[in-house]
Amino acid sequence: MRDQDGFITAFAPASIGNVAVGFDMLGLAISGAGDRVSARRSDADGVHISAVYGIDGKPHPELSGDARQNTASVAAAALWEQYGDGGLELQVRKGVPLQSGMGSSAASAVAGVVAANALLEQPLETAALMEFALAGESLASGGMHADNVAPSLLGGLVLCPPALMPDVIKLDVPTGICSVLLHPELSVNTAESRRGLANNISYEQWLTQQGYLAGFIAACRMNDHALLKRCLHDVIIEPQRAASVSCFAAVRDASLAAGALGCSLSGSGPSIFALCEEAAAAPIAAAMEAACRASEIDCQLWISPMTANGAHVESA
Amino acid sequence: MRDQDGFITAFAPASIGNVAVGFDMLGLAISGAGDRVSARRSDADGVHISAVYGIDGKPHPELSGDARQNTASVAAAALWEQYGDGGLELQVRKGVPLQSGMGSSAASAVAGVVAANALLEQPLETAALMEFALAGESLASGGMHADNVAPSLLGGLVLCPPALMPDVIKLDVPTGICSVLLHPELSVNTAESRRGLANNISYEQWLTQQGYLAGFIAACRMNDHALLKRCLHDVIIEPQRAASVSCFAAVRDASLAAGALGCSLSGSGPSIFALCEEAAAAPIAAAMEAACRASEIDCQLWISPMTANGAHVESA
Repeated sequence: MRDQDGFITAFAPASIGNVAVGFDMLGLAISGAGDRVSARRSDADGVHISAVYGIDGKPHPELSGDARQNTASVAAAALWEQYGDGGLELQVRKGVPLQSGMGSSAASAVAGVVAANALLEQPLETAALMEFALAGESLASGGMHADNVAPSLLGGLVLCPPALMPDVIKLDVPTGICSVLLHPELSVNTAESRRGLANNISYEQWLTQQGYLAGFIAACRMNDHALLKRCLHDVIIEPQRAASVSCFAAVRDASLAAGALGCSLSGSGPSIFALCEEAAAAPIAAAMEAACRASEIDCQLWISPMTANGAHVESA
Repeated sequence: MRDQDGFITAFAPASIGNVAVGFDMLGLAISGAGDRVSARRSDADGVHISAVYGIDGKPHPELSGDARQNTASVAAAALWEQYGDGGLELQVRKGVPLQSGMGSSAASAVAGVVAANALLEQPLETAALMEFALAGESLASGGMHADNVAPSLLGGLVLCPPALMPDVIKLDVPTGICSVLLHPELSVNTAESRRGLANNISYEQWLTQQGYLAGFIAACRMNDHALLKRCLHDVIIEPQRAASVSCFAAVRDASLAAGALGCSLSGSGPSIFALCEEAAAAPIAAAMEAACRASEIDCQLWISPMTANGAHVESA
C-alpha cells in the first residue's frame, strides 16, 4: 500500500449533512469527491504536515501547514498520541471545497486518522476511529457533530444523534436511489450559520420534523420511494438558511420539476442536494446545473448512489 | 362467525400511546385487554346501540347507548353510511378502562368498524378501515391522532406521524421484548392533559427527543436491546405530565430497579408502561404492582409481547 516514498494514502469522501430530515444527526456519503491524506513515519517529534495541496496538485492557497490548525493532523495526532510512537509526517490533498456544506473538514479529519491508523502495528477497527476523527472535526465545527464524520468514515447513510454519541447507527438504504450534489461557487460559514438560528420551535414544527425523520428512516428500510418523497422535507432549518444561498430556490425548483424526490441544503450550504431515482439522476443534475448557471453562479456536481463507500486506504 | 342471535363480534386491543419516544406518532398494541363490539343487521334506520356492557357483563355505569356519543358507533356509522345498507345494531362490551391512557376510545372505534366491516358483502381490507376508525376516535380526542387507533387496528408497533396521515407505518419489532402495562385506579382527562402542555421547546429538547425516536426505530429494526434502552426516554412530555400521576415516580423507579429497559406514561396516563426482556417481565410487573399498591392505589397489569395482534373478528 506504500508508495515509493513510503507514504500510505487514505481517501475520505465528502458527505451531505442533515439530509433535510435530520438536522445535526443524519449524514450521507457521496462518491467522487473527497480528501486524501498521505502519511509516513518520520524522525521529527510528533505529527507535522509537510504539504497541503489543492485539487489541482498545487500548494493550497488558503490552508496552512500548521498541524494545530488542520483537522487532518489534529485527528491523526489524537490517534497517534494514544497508539503510535515516534514522528508522523502528513501530506494533505484537498478535494472537497472549503466551507461548501460538503463536510470538507470532516473528510480531512477522517482521511488523516485512517492514514495514521494504517501505519500502526495493530490498526484499530474502522468504527473505533470515530472518536479521533471527531476530535479533528471539533477544531472546525467547535462541537461534537458527527453528521459529516460518520458517513465519511463508514459510508452510506448514518444516524448520529448528539444524545447517543459516541454511538452512531448505519441505516438501511433503499435500492436505486441516488444523490445529486451541487456546489455553487459561494461560501457560507458554518459557525456563523449556526449562530443565526432561532432558539425555540413550536410543538407543531417539532412533531412535523420528527415525523418526517422517522418516516424517512422507515421509507429507506422499506424501499418505499413514494413515502421517502413525502418525508424528505426540512421545515425548521432550511427556511432559516435558504435565503443565504441566492440560487437555492431556483435550483430546488428545477430539481423537483425534473422529478427529484426532494431537495434541500447540504449541511449549512451553500451546496444543495437532491435525492432521486437512478434513471432520473442525469437529467435532474442537468436541470439543477442549468438553474444555477442561469443565476450566473459557477458550480460543480456529483451523482452518487446512496450506498457510496466510506473512507479507505488506497493502493499505491 | 355469527352467534345464535346473528351477531358478529370483533375484538380490538388496548394500546400504549406515545411509547415514550414518539409523542402523538407512535403506538404499541397490547394483548389481554380490549373492547368487543358485536354487530348485526337490523330493521331500524341507521346505526344504533342496543347495549353497552362493562367488563363484568353488567350494563356499563358511565357509557350511554346514544350512538352519536360512542366512538364504536360513530366509527361503524362512518363505514356503514358509505358501504352498508339498511340498519345496524351494535352491542359494546368495554374491556378497557375509561380515561386510562390505554386507548379506550380507540379500541371501541376499531372494534366497531371491524365488526361492521365483517357484515358488508365485500368487506374492505384492514388498512382501509383506518379512516373510519379515526372518525370515531376524533369524537373522543377532538383531533386526528392515530397513535392508539393504528396499533389497535394493525397490531404491533405502528408509526403514525400527523404529517403523514392517513399513511401509517408498521415498524419492525425486536424479538424477546415485552411491554408491562400498569393501570392505576386514577383518572386523567386526555383533552385537559393536552391543554396543559407548553407551547414551545428548545432546539436541544427537539434534537434530543428526535434522536431518541430515530434511535429507537433503528434499535427495534436491529434487535439491539442496549440501544433500545439508551433511547427509551421522553424528555419533553413526561416531565410535564408525571406529577399528575401520584404513583408514577415510584412505579417507574421500581421497574428500572427490576431491570426494565425504560418506563414512561402510556398516552397521557395515568397508565404506566415499561419495556423489558421477556424473562424479566414477571418480576418487573410484580415490582411495579408492589410500588403502586405501596402508594395505596389499586391497579391492574398486563404483560404483552411487542408483536401483539391487532383487531380481529372472533369465532362465535
